[in-house]
Amino acid sequence: MSFTAYILDVVSDTIYPARITVENGIFKKVTPIIVNERTILDVPGLMIPGFIDSHIHIESSMLTPAQFAKIAVRHGTTGVVCDPHEIANVMGVAGVDAMIENAKQVPFNFYFTAPSCVPATTFETSGATVDSDDIEVLLKKEEVVALGEMMNYPGVINGDPEVHRKLELAHVYGKPIDGHAPLVSREDLDKYLEPGISTDHECSTILEALEKKLKGVKIMARDGSSALDMEELFNVEEGKKSIENPELLGVFYTDIFENKIYSPLFDFIVSDDKHPDDLIKGHLNQSVKKAIRLGIDPLKAINMVTINPAYHYGLNCGAIVEGARADYIIVDSISNLNIKKTYIAGECVFDGENVLFDVPDIDAHNSINASKKTASDFDIHYDGDECEVNVIECIDGDLLTKKTTAKLKTKDGIVQSSLIQDVLKIAVVERYGGNAVANAFIKGFGLKKGAIASSVAHDSHNIIVIGYTSEEMAQAVNQVIDNKGGIAVVSQDFTDSLPLPIAGLMSNDDAYDVAEKVGVLHDIVSALGCRLKSPFMTMAFMALLVIPSIKISDQGLFDGDNFEFMDVIIN
Amino acid sequence: MSFTAYILDVVSDTIYPARITVENGIFKKVTPIIVNERTILDVPGLMIPGFIDSHIHIESSMLTPAQFAKIAVRHGTTGVVCDPHEIANVMGVAGVDAMIENAKQVPFNFYFTAPSCVPATTFETSGATVDSDDIEVLLKKEEVVALGEMMNYPGVINGDPEVHRKLELAHVYGKPIDGHAPLVSREDLDKYLEPGISTDHECSTILEALEKKLKGVKIMARDGSSALDMEELFNVEEGKKSIENPELLGVFYTDIFENKIYSPLFDFIVSDDKHPDDLIKGHLNQSVKKAIRLGIDPLKAINMVTINPAYHYGLNCGAIVEGARADYIIVDSISNLNIKKTYIAGECVFDGENVLFDVPDIDAHNSINASKKTASDFDIHYDGDECEVNVIECIDGDLLTKKTTAKLKTKDGIVQSSLIQDVLKIAVVERYGGNAVANAFIKGFGLKKGAIASSVAHDSHNIIVIGYTSEEMAQAVNQVIDNKGGIAVVSQDFTDSLPLPIAGLMSNDDAYDVAEKVGVLHDIVSALGCRLKSPFMTMAFMALLVIPSIKISDQGLFDGDNFEFMDVIIN
Repeated sequence: MSFTAYILDVVSDTIYPARITVENGIFKKVTPIIVNERTILDVPGLMIPGFIDSHIHIESSMLTPAQFAKIAVRHGTTGVVCDPHEIANVMGVAGVDAMIENAKQVPFNFYFTAPSCVPATTFETSGATVDSDDIEVLLKKEEVVALGEMMNYPGVINGDPEVHRKLELAHVYGKPIDGHAPLVSREDLDKYLEPGISTDHECSTILEALEKKLKGVKIMARDGSSALDMEELFNVEEGKKSIENPELLGVFYTDIFENKIYSPLFDFIVSDDKHPDDLIKGHLNQSVKKAIRLGIDPLKAINMVTINPAYHYGLNCGAIVEGARADYIIVDSISNLNIKKTYIAGECVFDGENVLFDVPDIDAHNSINASKKTASDFDIHYDGDECEVNVIECIDGDLLTKKTTAKLKTKDGIVQSSLIQDVLKIAVVERYGGNAVANAFIKGFGLKKGAIASSVAHDSHNIIVIGYTSEEMAQAVNQVIDNKGGIAVVSQDFTDSLPLPIAGLMSNDDAYDVAEKVGVLHDIVSALGCRLKSPFMTMAFMALLVIPSIKISDQGLFDGDNFEFMDVIIN
Repeated sequence: MSFTAYILDVVSDTIYPARITVENGIFKKVTPIIVNERTILDVPGLMIPGFIDSHIHIESSMLTPAQFAKIAVRHGTTGVVCDPHEIANVMGVAGVDAMIENAKQVPFNFYFTAPSCVPATTFETSGATVDSDDIEVLLKKEEVVALGEMMNYPGVINGDPEVHRKLELAHVYGKPIDGHAPLVSREDLDKYLEPGISTDHECSTILEALEKKLKGVKIMARDGSSALDMEELFNVEEGKKSIENPELLGVFYTDIFENKIYSPLFDFIVSDDKHPDDLIKGHLNQSVKKAIRLGIDPLKAINMVTINPAYHYGLNCGAIVEGARADYIIVDSISNLNIKKTYIAGECVFDGENVLFDVPDIDAHNSINASKKTASDFDIHYDGDECEVNVIECIDGDLLTKKTTAKLKTKDGIVQSSLIQDVLKIAVVERYGGNAVANAFIKGFGLKKGAIASSVAHDSHNIIVIGYTSEEMAQAVNQVIDNKGGIAVVSQDFTDSLPLPIAGLMSNDDAYDVAEKVGVLHDIVSALGCRLKSPFMTMAFMALLVIPSIKISDQGLFDGDNFEFMDVIIN
């Protein structure tokens, strides 16, 4: 196949007309050509490399890899480096294999990383453990291009042998190691990076990015559903104000802070998490446009989602150059980035209207091993009329929580929610056969009645539930169990739910259907009084113990500042 | 040799610390590394690829290639694609060979182009002809990387067979063809480009650049001593105003003019001509800083003088990547671009104070074959008291001239200069053995007494002279002849001169000495009443017939609009 087009050359950062020959899915020849005014090139618009997301958890889209691909190609994405951390917490290596198997069946470039931190902590019950032997099995696979984000920074810093064996294995197999070290700094950061951890997507300030960049870390600016760090990071004027220790900045100080030479600081734009309702609207195409609006040179922004990921992870794509796989998209213009067509290995997979491949299901064998619950499972008992309790205070859209307390009344020896204080009941139901239930209280969720439950609850994905009464909580959890996973909303005699039968995390349905259902459930939750912008996401992070200050696992209320359990009832 | 440094990676457009191993002058390994706060990298500052000038005539520096290299490495230049067009006009292929031979003796990357248009026109006497057979000889040389700028656009457009044979030979030897087509547009441009001419450095407006870019031409933004087009080209707001036919702009319109996505338009920054007094101050380092100040992304600006030239001309340099030649520089910061050290093929050639190589001379065999002149050679005779004459009106620093006329008195039958009208005498003395002298008048030069003569007179480099009296003109010309070429300034009994014994174009002296002498001569010319900023350059272009509207060759006064000779005396 041979054709002519204006191409964006991300090596030389210019545009020119070229004749392109594709053979066996590879750019065989790319030759600049001279055209005249009457020339009509074969390709209308501009041909640019397909976009690559260097760090994403597919599971957050609630879609299978194949369904993810089907929506992503509409936005010009042709590849992702994905970390199957969520499914690994539920199903271990078998879950990763199921993802890889499903991914292989669609024409889209899935590159996997080996999930390095499963389970996330020892303070919760996960569905599986991925130990260093498992990591070795995964790193041997050609589909696996890196060791996944090393979230266990205390383990790295304190020399945990199992953690370090995983890191060493990455070197043995010649694969890079992704990092995850929010706010880790100075000597701790040095210790964390020393084993060769080479990326970070957790920078939330310019100063943090700068310190890591100086130490050799490639910086992923995150623009996803959960975190929008990119907007903060690309705002140089604001960033300048945050600098207290200019001596840290070494060679970069003059360039960046006196002369606003800013672009060399960032290497990638990533999404990390992309929820179905966001994903139907856009992916990296939106992020690149936003980066341009924030003042990043357009070619630099495109580099961050094309040649840079390819270069770092050793992927044979990301540029329209001879020898690379013919992954490319046709856009109307760089500024609009309307995706006219998407090609993978030279084949059209999106023609501007339809996605041209079929999507296989993943077999949905039940991963929810939990008995049905009754209201009494969610009761917290106290002898007396009133008691003081520790309460999780959640913040809309934030992974962080605040510790607070409340005085609650009892009725028949059972501590009651308080609408007037906005203190509701929260519980985590173990789903891996042990049937433990941990109960506590949460403030700030705003629900006036009913309950919501979900089997998406980072990182172990036990069933999390928030509700006004124990009865409704039991009803919501049982609906999730019946659905073999998913999200359920209950209010008195009304129930609606989104089944996520694949590991309790994903649906075989397509993005539009899943997004629509999420939207319906969101509307119901709003009608029940919750004012949060992202109620399901906020709830899903209430079990993420590694982020401070107070969380809950199936084993109890957890003090994230001191990394230990704490009592619900204070006196 | 192995060392650590922060490097600017022009492929991924980021900066990171790396361990670099150089072997046999080549980057053997370039590995990103993790460092900590206490790490002291071997190289202080930032390591970036050495700069490459994609289009320069070394002869304009009045320096030999070796002396040019000696000053250029101080500014971070490690390579040039140079067109020995000037020496070829004087000495033909032998001159090119002398340049190549001299260039080889210093550690600097000289890539030559085969001068495609020697002589420039048939209306002047040049020292040599470079025909298509000569071009073939040159294109076979490994030092020759392209066919030099094809200035003869009428020849290309009208199908001149000899011109087209030269173009075809470039394709036979797989070497790109440089263009030169000022203001050539629409169908004429199509015809000009059709043989595969792939660069242009003559764009003086954004619209011109845009039309050429759309047609597949790579655009060289020029920032030299003679032309400062870059400032005009990189000013997008001004450029927008010049657009009358947006339909011409096709796929670029929205990006460039609505959203200021501007950088993909330009491929290279070049100097074209760099005079000695400018060259001692800076080269591409200055131009990149200027481009950044004009709003071009710094990494894009650096790409234009590193990877882009390397990519286009097939040079194994321009990036700090494995397998490329280890041409690099150490700078303090991107914004300052102070050159701390310069390395070529891994060897330090400039240590921040001294240039670490010796510079060989070129043997200065005399290329001035002209008999001594007398005052009468410069007399213009007229029978009568007064006559009307055609006059060249020069514009300071411009290649263009205006046609004007003047009424001049005679004395003893000889037409006299007029100080009150600022009309002086100008002559071109043939230097290749024929001894022709053509006389005419020039306005706007401002000299109140004396004469200046030079053997730098584009493109044939006969001896050009401007003066108040015939006596002084003869004296100045004879001084140039005595010096075997160069510039001479005469006033009554006073003479000073810069000998340029190599082809009448270059000196074996170093840049500082030549620049100083040019400065002294400039001061004298100013003292003689000339207010031009660039008197020698302006004079040198008075014989450049291809630029309108009125010029002079050794064969007579020339009408550049109609491409024919014209009479000096009107009636």
